[in-house]
Amino acid sequence: MTTASDPDRRIIVLGGDGYLGWPTAMHFATRGWTVCAVDNYSRREIASANNASSLFDNPKLPERCNALRRVTNSNVVSVELDVNDYCALSQIVREFRPTALLHFAEQPSAPYSMWTYETARFTLNNNINTTFNAIWAILQEAPDCHLIKLGTMGEYGTPNIDIEEGWIDIHHRGRSERFLFPRQGPSLYHTTKIMDTDLIHFYCRHCGLRATDLMQGPVYGIHTEETRLSDQLLTNFHYDDIFGTVLNRFVVQAVVGIPLTVYGEGRQVRGFLNLIDSLRCIEIAALETPKAGQLCVANQFTQTFAILDLAARVVDAADFLGIRATIDHLPNPRMEQADHYYNPTHRHFVDRGLVPNLLTRETLVDMLKVVSENRSRIDTSRFYPRISWNRRAPGHQRCEARPAAMDEERRTA
Amino acid sequence: MTTASDPDRRIIVLGGDGYLGWPTAMHFATRGWTVCAVDNYSRREIASANNASSLFDNPKLPERCNALRRVTNSNVVSVELDVNDYCALSQIVREFRPTALLHFAEQPSAPYSMWTYETARFTLNNNINTTFNAIWAILQEAPDCHLIKLGTMGEYGTPNIDIEEGWIDIHHRGRSERFLFPRQGPSLYHTTKIMDTDLIHFYCRHCGLRATDLMQGPVYGIHTEETRLSDQLLTNFHYDDIFGTVLNRFVVQAVVGIPLTVYGEGRQVRGFLNLIDSLRCIEIAALETPKAGQLCVANQFTQTFAILDLAARVVDAADFLGIRATIDHLPNPRMEQADHYYNPTHRHFVDRGLVPNLLTRETLVDMLKVVSENRSRIDTSRFYPRISWNRRAPGHQRCEARPAAMDEERRTA
Repeated sequence: MTTASDPDRRIIVLGGDGYLGWPTAMHFATRGWTVCAVDNYSRREIASANNASSLFDNPKLPERCNALRRVTNSNVVSVELDVNDYCALSQIVREFRPTALLHFAEQPSAPYSMWTYETARFTLNNNINTTFNAIWAILQEAPDCHLIKLGTMGEYGTPNIDIEEGWIDIHHRGRSERFLFPRQGPSLYHTTKIMDTDLIHFYCRHCGLRATDLMQGPVYGIHTEETRLSDQLLTNFHYDDIFGTVLNRFVVQAVVGIPLTVYGEGRQVRGFLNLIDSLRCIEIAALETPKAGQLCVANQFTQTFAILDLAARVVDAADFLGIRATIDHLPNPRMEQADHYYNPTHRHFVDRGLVPNLLTRETLVDMLKVVSENRSRIDTSRFYPRISWNRRAPGHQRCEARPAAMDEERRTA
Repeated sequence: MTTASDPDRRIIVLGGDGYLGWPTAMHFATRGWTVCAVDNYSRREIASANNASSLFDNPKLPERCNALRRVTNSNVVSVELDVNDYCALSQIVREFRPTALLHFAEQPSAPYSMWTYETARFTLNNNINTTFNAIWAILQEAPDCHLIKLGTMGEYGTPNIDIEEGWIDIHHRGRSERFLFPRQGPSLYHTTKIMDTDLIHFYCRHCGLRATDLMQGPVYGIHTEETRLSDQLLTNFHYDDIFGTVLNRFVVQAVVGIPLTVYGEGRQVRGFLNLIDSLRCIEIAALETPKAGQLCVANQFTQTFAILDLAARVVDAADFLGIRATIDHLPNPRMEQADHYYNPTHRHFVDRGLVPNLLTRETLVDMLKVVSENRSRIDTSRFYPRISWNRRAPGHQRCEARPAAMDEERRTA
């Protein structure tokens, strides 16, 4: 499966322990890239402190890398490192000499960013400073390196006009200018990604940074080519209210016979993609280095669905397996438009050869089977939203009453 | 001069020791508001560490407040506090119960933000976290309080279309939506202000924050109604390459007989305003509290000038006083468009009664006279830019070689 390593294909994956990070690291390693995976395991810590751990018992990076080497003869080097530590990061970049740097090292949960002052401030500072450090490490140590940043389709929000791919030409009072497409996200997490874009766009314009911003929709799926080779190579799979993405959560709910929890009426429309397509998009992005100073933006999803439609597809696939699943509507804990126009473009990756793995009954049946095999590990207390975004004043604890135990504070949120 | 204090007019000025902060605190205090000025003196520290102190020997806030009380019988309470400390800030907000909170507590120098990794990271973290804390302190402790944020016209950059006041209606493929006017600033400092706007806009939409964003152009001037009453009430006046704004610097250069340093050909156009008009705009803003969830944006300048035109006006005013001033063109240390379209709107404050103090020869003559009286205090080594923004890789020091003395590092930048 491995090929000879290419000196021009050296990639660092920041956040290499994540749902996307680890499969991405394997994907590149088995395709001839020299790969360094960096993580500080902060998602694992937040998950284990909040009863939100992965369905699978995923080993940490050194063990994962050993397993990958045994099974595929491909190599991923792993480094335990907080990307907020600039000296440590810049040393890695200087020594590894990457041609591309994937930045997935962000706190990825929108609900977590909307919980308390502490979780909000952590999200803000982690996400902004990891981006800042990634930019500076490249500019100072590897100026031609391509920064590939994981953004989200959520940054665009749900405007009443067609969503273009990153940029828009505005015609105004007889004159024209091209701008970044306006962004206005539905959570602090999404807002930090918008702020990342401000930083990256600035350093592209002023310091010749080469960058790609991947505006990705919610990802679903369990397996990639590599994860099928060994249980030790599985990526994490969250189905809780903090880290679980919607389709993955529906699949787990169907397996344990709990109604699928649709927030509100479920007419919110979003763009989704399979984990396998996410890896392929990232690979396509990495194979095309922007010019110095160029910020390339690509919308990374393959299909749009209303949430209720997604739930109905899971019910249908479960039925095919003889599982009777039902749907429950919860009051929406998020601040979202119930009905809205949504027409985002997504030409970039299709034009470059992406052949989407669309959401079929077969895909869902496969997911349901894997989750069923792990049914005994499912904690059914994790499905219901503990964090309500839908209120005027965020947080709840005054500063002087900061409790000793964060868990206690979080539980009452 | 003082009037009875109004229980509905209670204002906190974050950054109350600044060029704008202190005159603003006095302006509100002498007009019947109850005023609390907060500062941690970080600008003073940066200035004194980098040979960039104010022309005047301004006392710190407690002494300034005493002087104000003696001269006007008006009261400003001062608190020494880092706005990055959320517990301390939220306690002040809880106890003071402000109806408005002015946020000037940012690192205000664009060149400083473009110097080294350390100065950039300080600017980023200080500006983002002070804004974040100001938002949260209001939402948790005084949810109806009006956040007034000092933005800058520089956030808009110099686009090829007319600059509206904060918002723009975009018509695209037969549909329409109103968005924040696109922002793309020329320095990291400007970019942090754009990121502030992202945060404020988000918390307005999702938590009902009431906010006004003042998109201010460069301010010039020395005196306000209150500063004329005592030398102890003077605001700071910077003429150096770090904190000095362009017109103030030209006036000082003219007084000491050094050619006025125009960056490049000087055809860059910007919107300017007198310090007196800045205070009036802030007052108008404070008298109109937005609805819950509303973000009001106002362009705060009175006239646009090309930089070379400004320099010529200073030469003319100096000539009137018998001072022979000349102009020198330096290579532009900034990354700016030499020639550009620039047509920003500024109706908001004029519609609400602002009568601008335009830049006349008399204004400049007054400034030249005050600076001449302080001629012996001028350090002529401070005029030339030490910080070049105009290069590919920012910073210059690798992390492992971080020098013990910051001064040494800065000097070689």
